[in-house]
Amino acid sequence: MTPLRIAIAGLGTVGSGTLCLLRENAEIVATRAGRAISITAISARSKNKSRGCSLEGLKWFDDPRELASCSDVDVVVELIGGASGVAHELCEAALKNGKHVVTANKAMLAEHGLKLAQLAEKNERQLMFEAAVAGGIPVIKTVREALAGNKMRSVQGILNGTCNYILTRMAAAHLDFSAALHEAQTKGYAEADPAMDIDGHDTAHKLTLLAALAFGGAPNLSAVAVEGLRRMTPLDLQFAAELDCRIKLLGVARLTEHGLEQRVGPCLVPVSSPLSLVDNVLNAVQIRGDAVGPVTLVGRGAGSAPTASAVVGDLIDLARGTQVKPFGVPSTACSTIKVTPPEARQSHWYIRLQVVDQPGVVADISAILRDENISIESMLQRGRSRTDSVPVILTTHEIDEAAMRRAVAKMVHVKTVKEEPCLMRIESA
Amino acid sequence: MTPLRIAIAGLGTVGSGTLCLLRENAEIVATRAGRAISITAISARSKNKSRGCSLEGLKWFDDPRELASCSDVDVVVELIGGASGVAHELCEAALKNGKHVVTANKAMLAEHGLKLAQLAEKNERQLMFEAAVAGGIPVIKTVREALAGNKMRSVQGILNGTCNYILTRMAAAHLDFSAALHEAQTKGYAEADPAMDIDGHDTAHKLTLLAALAFGGAPNLSAVAVEGLRRMTPLDLQFAAELDCRIKLLGVARLTEHGLEQRVGPCLVPVSSPLSLVDNVLNAVQIRGDAVGPVTLVGRGAGSAPTASAVVGDLIDLARGTQVKPFGVPSTACSTIKVTPPEARQSHWYIRLQVVDQPGVVADISAILRDENISIESMLQRGRSRTDSVPVILTTHEIDEAAMRRAVAKMVHVKTVKEEPCLMRIESA
Repeated sequence: MTPLRIAIAGLGTVGSGTLCLLRENAEIVATRAGRAISITAISARSKNKSRGCSLEGLKWFDDPRELASCSDVDVVVELIGGASGVAHELCEAALKNGKHVVTANKAMLAEHGLKLAQLAEKNERQLMFEAAVAGGIPVIKTVREALAGNKMRSVQGILNGTCNYILTRMAAAHLDFSAALHEAQTKGYAEADPAMDIDGHDTAHKLTLLAALAFGGAPNLSAVAVEGLRRMTPLDLQFAAELDCRIKLLGVARLTEHGLEQRVGPCLVPVSSPLSLVDNVLNAVQIRGDAVGPVTLVGRGAGSAPTASAVVGDLIDLARGTQVKPFGVPSTACSTIKVTPPEARQSHWYIRLQVVDQPGVVADISAILRDENISIESMLQRGRSRTDSVPVILTTHEIDEAAMRRAVAKMVHVKTVKEEPCLMRIESA
Repeated sequence: MTPLRIAIAGLGTVGSGTLCLLRENAEIVATRAGRAISITAISARSKNKSRGCSLEGLKWFDDPRELASCSDVDVVVELIGGASGVAHELCEAALKNGKHVVTANKAMLAEHGLKLAQLAEKNERQLMFEAAVAGGIPVIKTVREALAGNKMRSVQGILNGTCNYILTRMAAAHLDFSAALHEAQTKGYAEADPAMDIDGHDTAHKLTLLAALAFGGAPNLSAVAVEGLRRMTPLDLQFAAELDCRIKLLGVARLTEHGLEQRVGPCLVPVSSPLSLVDNVLNAVQIRGDAVGPVTLVGRGAGSAPTASAVVGDLIDLARGTQVKPFGVPSTACSTIKVTPPEARQSHWYIRLQVVDQPGVVADISAILRDENISIESMLQRGRSRTDSVPVILTTHEIDEAAMRRAVAKMVHVKTVKEEPCLMRIESA
């Protein structure tokens, strides 16, 4: 068989990793794929950076968009990144020119995924993106193919290694948020500008793709309620542990009778859940199908080689001739699924209040909760101080987010409550 | 598009589950598969048993082998079971007649897998068996497709829910083996004749398939060293816990410089390993690739609906036109990989001796270990008794299995050693 000819756009961490992996494992990849996968052209910002393996014999393009019209290229591998701009233009042009596209670009897919899928289908080409979610963990393939016989109930996961590392270190070493972030940056686990990660946007991008695949809707980024990590304190991690929980930044998509609920934020996860034990930069995803029940996948969610493993997996599928719609169903069948309104987003809740330790505080708080029909599951006060505020931890029975947020808004106005209360969901096991 | 027409042979737990799942999720399956999957014919032992959904409109055959020659069948789904006999004849005939085969039959594939793969390739048909290993967990697809860019290092897992349930109950409720087995039988988790499960053969069948996929060899059942659970005692589970481990019946296949090591048996798994926390009837598999590192999959490894999920996943792949060699590489490329000899199977070890508590016992044991160049990592004696024997637990540094077994054989002849010593591997985390 003729080789599958690919071009790689972007030779950063993932691009170089892909290049090197295709070189190192060329023989076994060819045996498994049924044909060689040969790199014909590349494009990157700098020609002279060291990439861990030789670029000899590869056609070089300064403008990656030119790869879309290379006559000896069957697949464009887009590893530039960025929701719009060059990456997006390249993918569009490549599909229009009858080339397959493999990409790790979650931001682009979260925003333009449906249009790109339509373009791929129109041109009878494949758009593959295993590397866009959870690095080396084969979650896209699992949802799109392996579990395709299931009606999906929910998909949730730890989808950002930076956040998971920060939370792990805050819990293990009692660091505050900025110290843990700094440590993550020093170790290369967080970027100089960490906003995309720690504010939850990266998780939101990945979540919309998983939700689209699981529930057959178009990726709907604006429907995701996003909360980040900046307000996290070691105190909350400590109280979570006392409640037999860990705090994890989860992306959660689940189908309820009221529509599709999509949210990103720190949650208390009971230690009985497999997600609670996934630490450091590891990622994990749990998929619930009506037939299969829960399936949990754990592994390296980022990094050069694990992400390259996902890219090469897609390339082998292409070489084998696999054809599957980008979002598992024809894009004509992708609709915008009704969004679950906050009144219908039920959860157990964790609230930490900083209060001045005076008689009547608990009565004030309890009255607010009663007025919103919120039932208290447990209450815990730690320490006593006539001058400083002390933490009071409440957990509630199941109640909708709208009621919970109204109660918290009222608590802010109680004179003895000193800071904005910290509110987090408690996930069921 | 025309429907994919399937015949189901065998309507036991998995067969009925498949039938019902295809009926219940028909619409979403058709949307995802790009065409309907329609059942045309069935065969089972009893026509009148209740199966949870209607058999109306389906052609009935008393002899499942007749399904192989049905003109309106594209895929034969073999869910009869048994290594040879009817199931095997049916699969052979179906492939020869140009039909795809989907099967959950690990015993058949472990013994006849390579020949069936050759037959499938010769006839340009697919032989798919996601349901044969770990039920609803998509481990076949993960190894064969998603991680195909990796050179595999190892595949290991908890592949038998019956054994895992027994071990979980022995540890949690301090039951002895036969009480835990009886409980498993009462709950329907173990068969009346539990030998296939508790003696490790079921795990061995599944392991050979995973090893064949991961390392590109032919399934080689005779190369698997198999040990079962019958000798397990609550005492060992308790000591394992003191060593920060759990005992799990693992199937392990790993490539070493000396060849392919394949073994099944109870092992001590450190609590830091994700496999240690997988309890009850759940299954889990950990795959290590050179690029991706470790990927762990956890879920329901048996039962009607989870296994049906795997069967229907394969059917959707077929409906989409996916083509992949049964063992990931052409059967001509499947060789018998050299087997790692016992002298080269390195491990840390756990040994429990029942000894009469007399001076000199430890000296005798230590001398035997020294003579075999085995270095002791820890020693633990519990209880004192002048009359009964007391347990002594040893753990060793890494040493090969041949030396370890020679040492144990010598220990049996020490007068103060009362029972056959209990020897188990300690897995690294």
